[in-house]
Amino acid sequence: MTFKVPKDVTFCLEEEKGKEFIDKFWGKTPTYCCVIANTDTAKIPGISAAGANPDITDYTPAADMELLYYGRCKCIEGVPITPDGIPTPGLITMSALKLAPMPVFVLNGGLRVKPHAPYFEVDGNPGEDIRTGKSVKNAERTYDRAVVAGKNLAKTTDCLVVAESVPGGTTTALGVLTALGYDANGKVSSTFPVNPHDLKQKVVEEGINACGLSREALKLDPMAAVQALGDPMMAPAAGLIAGAAESIPVLMAGGTQMAAVLAVLKGMDDTVLDNVAIGTTRWVAEDEHSDLCHLVSQIAEVPVLAANLNFSLSRFDGLKIYETGLVKEGVGAGGACIAAMASSEGRVTSHGLNDEIEKNYARLVSRR
Amino acid sequence: MTFKVPKDVTFCLEEEKGKEFIDKFWGKTPTYCCVIANTDTAKIPGISAAGANPDITDYTPAADMELLYYGRCKCIEGVPITPDGIPTPGLITMSALKLAPMPVFVLNGGLRVKPHAPYFEVDGNPGEDIRTGKSVKNAERTYDRAVVAGKNLAKTTDCLVVAESVPGGTTTALGVLTALGYDANGKVSSTFPVNPHDLKQKVVEEGINACGLSREALKLDPMAAVQALGDPMMAPAAGLIAGAAESIPVLMAGGTQMAAVLAVLKGMDDTVLDNVAIGTTRWVAEDEHSDLCHLVSQIAEVPVLAANLNFSLSRFDGLKIYETGLVKEGVGAGGACIAAMASSEGRVTSHGLNDEIEKNYARLVSRR
Repeated sequence: MTFKVPKDVTFCLEEEKGKEFIDKFWGKTPTYCCVIANTDTAKIPGISAAGANPDITDYTPAADMELLYYGRCKCIEGVPITPDGIPTPGLITMSALKLAPMPVFVLNGGLRVKPHAPYFEVDGNPGEDIRTGKSVKNAERTYDRAVVAGKNLAKTTDCLVVAESVPGGTTTALGVLTALGYDANGKVSSTFPVNPHDLKQKVVEEGINACGLSREALKLDPMAAVQALGDPMMAPAAGLIAGAAESIPVLMAGGTQMAAVLAVLKGMDDTVLDNVAIGTTRWVAEDEHSDLCHLVSQIAEVPVLAANLNFSLSRFDGLKIYETGLVKEGVGAGGACIAAMASSEGRVTSHGLNDEIEKNYARLVSRR
Repeated sequence: MTFKVPKDVTFCLEEEKGKEFIDKFWGKTPTYCCVIANTDTAKIPGISAAGANPDITDYTPAADMELLYYGRCKCIEGVPITPDGIPTPGLITMSALKLAPMPVFVLNGGLRVKPHAPYFEVDGNPGEDIRTGKSVKNAERTYDRAVVAGKNLAKTTDCLVVAESVPGGTTTALGVLTALGYDANGKVSSTFPVNPHDLKQKVVEEGINACGLSREALKLDPMAAVQALGDPMMAPAAGLIAGAAESIPVLMAGGTQMAAVLAVLKGMDDTVLDNVAIGTTRWVAEDEHSDLCHLVSQIAEVPVLAANLNFSLSRFDGLKIYETGLVKEGVGAGGACIAAMASSEGRVTSHGLNDEIEKNYARLVSRR
């Protein structure tokens, strides 16, 4: 059987299933929903580059959503940047959604800074530093409510893209994957080009020691694992996917953070795993300092797809530098591009995305 | 031209436009979205029967939403009732949605008690007593954010039903209609069979005198009118409708409270008025103590449709009593029934609704 597949997508894991999966997005209008949250883990020096400095990372998820809704941020000047001034991958997502318009929704997993935009509330709380071993409150409540949102969203669309924006989220991903018994050390991604694996591992070990639960207990209870070592995006993202994937295909748009969500999803509801795939960027898929496919293959037979974005010929240094491994992914950039390519029946390409991204970069970043 | 029209719907105002409007719902699956809020106006003795006593009216909107999502309430025992024990019209809405399933969403305009369910947050606040003349905060902010939600919801559905659940809401409707210069005294509906018009008028006059704005200033500024004399449902409901009705038909499901929302909508965006209609119950349409059609005809050439519900042959006294004018409408009961009839291509009828409502009444009310 042959499937309709965008030319600028690489199938990194479970290729046949991945082709069958993305074929269902061909010519359809997916709905895009981004689950956003804050965790104080992002404020540990050296953990996150998703903001000009650790304190300002609280604003990044809200600002990313404003970018998608309004084409500019409201809660901050300009757009979220790394300490080196490299702009948010939200620029990529925004460009994909411009070329292939989709309904956009936001779900607040637990934010310190709310976007100037409507969002689904599921009664979550901002996340604490995972070194406390008590990083998330009421995970199951947010999971359950997001299931309801997912079931209802699924009635309104043929397919769903679930994204995330959580500064510090790869460290909490390491935390939850470790807690759930997966071999994740040295495997999670980073916004930094040189991945601070040792620091992340140390932080996670502190959290495990502080949480008061045995490794065996954590392994068997995904909600306990999230509450001890996760961030507030994970449980509602898993719930949203569980609720929707009962009836429609769901593209989990993200890098190694989505591997953690997949691990949570598997622990909560393994009946929907045949209806999901992970969609990311080439920069994550080819990253030598992390290993998304190794993580996913430990969890379930779920396809991994990568959008072949390439900024090496960009006229802007701030985009070119993505090729060195800075930023890599976020706001569902890779998955949104894949969805845009399939939704447009291949009319949206990597090349066309580059042009749109450069245009938006020129407007939002270089002229500031 | 002939239109496909459910047999158990009465066209009370703008009949031809109303038939053309509801024809667009024929065989389609509308999305249902209920805007809920609290106002302390409901706690003025004698104003609202949307709760067993005035203080407990704070729980009614949240409980209504739980009924729709879960088939039972979570934040209270049983279901919301009047002081006489008559159950919420949410039972009718729930029954309509069971017979003709629709995606269900909730928007929090400003609540003291939140539902155990996901909802759109637009950063509103609970409403104060309108006698203060400062009954709502940040009306324009909630309007703007709800516009964004409405635009995005409209991309996911062919048609939308916008409902409300706000105890005390007919008094705030009188407030805003009066502030906007309409002749509304004695025209708004009530959950009580004997409508406390004099009390409502007195409360509204107090609010107008306290608000610090001239009648002329109020008349020209719908957001100021809502902030002085409205409730927190009105601005986001108008915004949701404005955002959606740009592209799809929107049934405003409610009685005289929706006349107030229509007045706000007209003041904010009169370009979408051709794409809306008001859908209510026969009990509101035929009410001798209020006059929805007179209100609407002052505002715009917008159709008014009524679902011909008739509980006179019910085996339950708690439903039969609806025929005496108690409760009448709420939670978009009338509009949800009309939408269910059209959506099912006429297979859902008044008779079928009665059976379903009796079944749910038996399960939720009489066995308590």
